[in-house]
Amino acid sequence: MKIKNVSILGAGTLGTRVALQAALSNYKVTIYDINPKALEASKKQMANIVNQLAKSSGLDPESGLNAIQTITFTDSPMVAVRDADIINESVVENVKVKNEVWELFGQIAPEKTIFTTNTSFLLPSMFAEISGRPEKFCALHFHDVFYAKGVDIMPHPGTDPSLIPILQEFGRSLEQVPVVIQKENHGYLFNAMLGAILSTAGKLLANKIANFEDIDKSYMVNFRVEMGPFAIMDSIGLDTVWHVTVNNNEESSKSFATILRKMLDEGKAGVKSGEGFYKYPNPAFKSPGFLN
Amino acid sequence: MKIKNVSILGAGTLGTRVALQAALSNYKVTIYDINPKALEASKKQMANIVNQLAKSSGLDPESGLNAIQTITFTDSPMVAVRDADIINESVVENVKVKNEVWELFGQIAPEKTIFTTNTSFLLPSMFAEISGRPEKFCALHFHDVFYAKGVDIMPHPGTDPSLIPILQEFGRSLEQVPVVIQKENHGYLFNAMLGAILSTAGKLLANKIANFEDIDKSYMVNFRVEMGPFAIMDSIGLDTVWHVTVNNNEESSKSFATILRKMLDEGKAGVKSGEGFYKYPNPAFKSPGFLN
Repeated sequence: MKIKNVSILGAGTLGTRVALQAALSNYKVTIYDINPKALEASKKQMANIVNQLAKSSGLDPESGLNAIQTITFTDSPMVAVRDADIINESVVENVKVKNEVWELFGQIAPEKTIFTTNTSFLLPSMFAEISGRPEKFCALHFHDVFYAKGVDIMPHPGTDPSLIPILQEFGRSLEQVPVVIQKENHGYLFNAMLGAILSTAGKLLANKIANFEDIDKSYMVNFRVEMGPFAIMDSIGLDTVWHVTVNNNEESSKSFATILRKMLDEGKAGVKSGEGFYKYPNPAFKSPGFLN
Repeated sequence: MKIKNVSILGAGTLGTRVALQAALSNYKVTIYDINPKALEASKKQMANIVNQLAKSSGLDPESGLNAIQTITFTDSPMVAVRDADIINESVVENVKVKNEVWELFGQIAPEKTIFTTNTSFLLPSMFAEISGRPEKFCALHFHDVFYAKGVDIMPHPGTDPSLIPILQEFGRSLEQVPVVIQKENHGYLFNAMLGAILSTAGKLLANKIANFEDIDKSYMVNFRVEMGPFAIMDSIGLDTVWHVTVNNNEESSKSFATILRKMLDEGKAGVKSGEGFYKYPNPAFKSPGFLN
């Protein structure tokens, strides 16, 4: 089958980015959210991203803004899935909400529609049955679409294997690098590895082995990259990092969760709040003298 | 104190690189090995590195080769430490051997000499007492000196704190980025984080979550780096990776160790043997189509 019409459920950060990339790749895109304000914010955010891409990767801003104009923004489920070839669901990371969404859309989507979930840490088997078409259900998980361009394809045991090459091709058409996860795994591949790095860095800090700047420096200089684990945590958001950390039962994870909780209570949630481990918009790790 | 005379014990891969960088940084360098053949090989290896640096970072090859000529290569312990301001010990990662070396050099080194060990996973407190001068004993651990330019400074509880700024300054003078580890920790900072990445990747493979290429792809594309964990393992050497993995008690680490053992039995030890997870000198992960 040839995918032409793409339906994105949920107009948050990731849904917005996937919808924009799909429009830039000449798909006919509809983005749905239950909240009309989220749709407005999504459209504005798309224009911001187009302007950033115009600077960073030479996208023609006019054709970018024109692509946004081709997108249908809707709070109507019926409009959202009318003639959809594929749904990519990016609603909030909550099992109950995702179940409700898939129960509804499973009933109203055309028979041809492929169902994919963009969940970060949940598993497709948790929603496949309630969608009413488990064989057409698969995880299709994007990272940030424009910088980190991996896309995870993770079937559950009931997924029709013929779906995999279709999703690989779809991922490539969105300028992503597809990888196939052969068995369901919380966090796919990359998030599992990233989680290990962040949790190890957090334990080094909690155990007072070194300060966070030295841990970041060590990572940056030896891997020759521009961000260390604490800078990455700031960009993810310390609320999210705390959430993952507090659910880990190791003693040193608990200590690191306590450090994060204290920071959050002081209003330090990372880049989005202006301060986390570092202060923004000019964090120390970006200053020329940091690696001295 | 001003460090002028640097004595390197052990003319293996890392000792050779530290000695060369010290000579390039205008220190008076002596490199010691019990085995004269290792000294010959070290000198040849230094010339190879100078030629590589001439290509990769614009080092003047003549001044590089001249720097090698200033180095004293010796199998005599007495010559090795005559007038040494600092010793950096890079002998084999074996407690018994390191103890013998520090017992000997503790007796014959001048009183002024600072003692440092370049151990990767052992702790300075294991050798501080036998050296006879625990207050002057500290870990000073290099990565690969010319590419990964971090240097770990890790005191043991008995190290004189005034040593730390001297070692930081010494590290900087060797064009390295020093970080201070406040409490002894196996693997310092970077090796602890690297170990977490490699062990998580190994478990993903052992648990058949994905093939090694997809795990590497996911890492490479989302972090935007040129090597994934399995490529890194090949460059470290699968014998070393096996050694670390087999000593980890988790079930999935044991399964990964079994995979590595089988590869080693087939002669696949990584880059140095021509094959590991990838085949060398032209591994698939470096081919332009790998991220498709």
